[in-house]
Amino acid sequence: MPLNPDAVGFVSEPSEARWTSRDSLLYALGVGAGVTDPTGFELEFTTENSDGITQRALPTMPVVLGGGGPGPMSAIGTFDWAMLVHGEQGITLHQPVPVEGTARIVGKVAAMYDKGKAAVVVLESEAREPGGDLLWTTTMSAFIRGEGGWGGDRGPSGPRNEAPDRAPDHVVSYATRPDQALLYRLNGDRNPLHSDPTFAARAGFPKPILHGLCTYGFTGRALLHAVCGSDPARFKAIEGRFSHPVMPGDVLDVKVWVDGAEAIFQTCVGDNVVIDSGRLTFA
Amino acid sequence: MPLNPDAVGFVSEPSEARWTSRDSLLYALGVGAGVTDPTGFELEFTTENSDGITQRALPTMPVVLGGGGPGPMSAIGTFDWAMLVHGEQGITLHQPVPVEGTARIVGKVAAMYDKGKAAVVVLESEAREPGGDLLWTTTMSAFIRGEGGWGGDRGPSGPRNEAPDRAPDHVVSYATRPDQALLYRLNGDRNPLHSDPTFAARAGFPKPILHGLCTYGFTGRALLHAVCGSDPARFKAIEGRFSHPVMPGDVLDVKVWVDGAEAIFQTCVGDNVVIDSGRLTFA
Repeated sequence: MPLNPDAVGFVSEPSEARWTSRDSLLYALGVGAGVTDPTGFELEFTTENSDGITQRALPTMPVVLGGGGPGPMSAIGTFDWAMLVHGEQGITLHQPVPVEGTARIVGKVAAMYDKGKAAVVVLESEAREPGGDLLWTTTMSAFIRGEGGWGGDRGPSGPRNEAPDRAPDHVVSYATRPDQALLYRLNGDRNPLHSDPTFAARAGFPKPILHGLCTYGFTGRALLHAVCGSDPARFKAIEGRFSHPVMPGDVLDVKVWVDGAEAIFQTCVGDNVVIDSGRLTFA
Repeated sequence: MPLNPDAVGFVSEPSEARWTSRDSLLYALGVGAGVTDPTGFELEFTTENSDGITQRALPTMPVVLGGGGPGPMSAIGTFDWAMLVHGEQGITLHQPVPVEGTARIVGKVAAMYDKGKAAVVVLESEAREPGGDLLWTTTMSAFIRGEGGWGGDRGPSGPRNEAPDRAPDHVVSYATRPDQALLYRLNGDRNPLHSDPTFAARAGFPKPILHGLCTYGFTGRALLHAVCGSDPARFKAIEGRFSHPVMPGDVLDVKVWVDGAEAIFQTCVGDNVVIDSGRLTFA
């Protein structure tokens, strides 16, 4: 059954996200906070009761707080979820993510592109405080093999956020752990592709792969410390494209080229770029 | 104000403990499951949806599920909590710990011993299913410096569960991680002695120390795999005495001497015995 391109413009009913201080601590530990950074234990992200330190949430945490419920993905039609891969992910923060709180989140089908033998679906979400103030917006694109072919717009293509032809201004290296995905999955994404060797083998991988959004969280931490002086209030927006799987235990090298209030970045494992076309906007 | 030795026999009102599958996963990860064991990812303890595997709880998990509320410790009188150290801990399992559930827990002041310049308080707890069946019982002793002197019984002394004068039958080595306590504390014990370098320095430690019960959990895992065939149903009872602080990042060597359906154990960091006088009963 083909996808329904008329779903573009669909807006979901608001869903409610609730999170606690403990959820923020668990998210931070799941993306490696507490051990690998030159700032030491990153106590403002990993503890709530350290002397003279106020707990803060990492700026990439919205990706685990929900994207407006299942509505938008249902609206585009039925398809084989095994054919879907996460393409791009963006977050714009209108204020720092609260350590604990409640948000009303609305999801929207922003675009559907026809790549011929695949489809690209772009979902946006908007999260507001109970009082109505905007907290964050997210953009996520999904690449669905075996769909497309309805004669629609192919969408934008060509390079974006290209790394300059010079050495990076910063390279931050973080080792992920062999059990990284077992911890990260407690934030909500229990897809066994990230934990069960049997399931991973059926999907064609030699072992379970790391959540793309876990790599994304490590990358956000690297950018936070490298160019935002470790201050989440200076971290305004991030976007990037998942370009290669990462295995738990891999070492991530986050390469950063600063240009004014923006930074272009790539996250690499050895010679492979695993997050490409990255851009951070900061203050 | 001295302690009140008449508190012996005090029984608390029942308190209710509730725990989820996610709590059991988090506890398992907090005591190192998922990476360091020869059985690999220990998927029965670290995942709930792996192919052909049923989730199970680690047998030492009762120590994070509560000991009958604050009543028993209040009953013994007021004292300086900074002078209290965890002395011994025992758990007897009447059935395997459920992966998720509810228990009614009653705490009791079982004994108070007068060591002259210190007091030892022994607390017992009993956890039952809502239907009334016994789940587990625990025994915990606290050593409180600066108390005692009421002329009471000094209590039992002398060696107990002594390691035989021969090489251990098993030695299981587990590395703890530099950030181990940051994860373990999400199970409930947020004492900053285990996370805040400033607080730890005031307590006389060069850096935050690992929770004794985290070392205890690693030790229980080692025993489970070494002598219970990794089957929690065969793990019947454990007891041991905390004898030396452990720093996050230390490597734990669990030395086991099997004698029929019992095993004597010691947990060591290098030449220091950190859990002494250990005994496991198994089936």
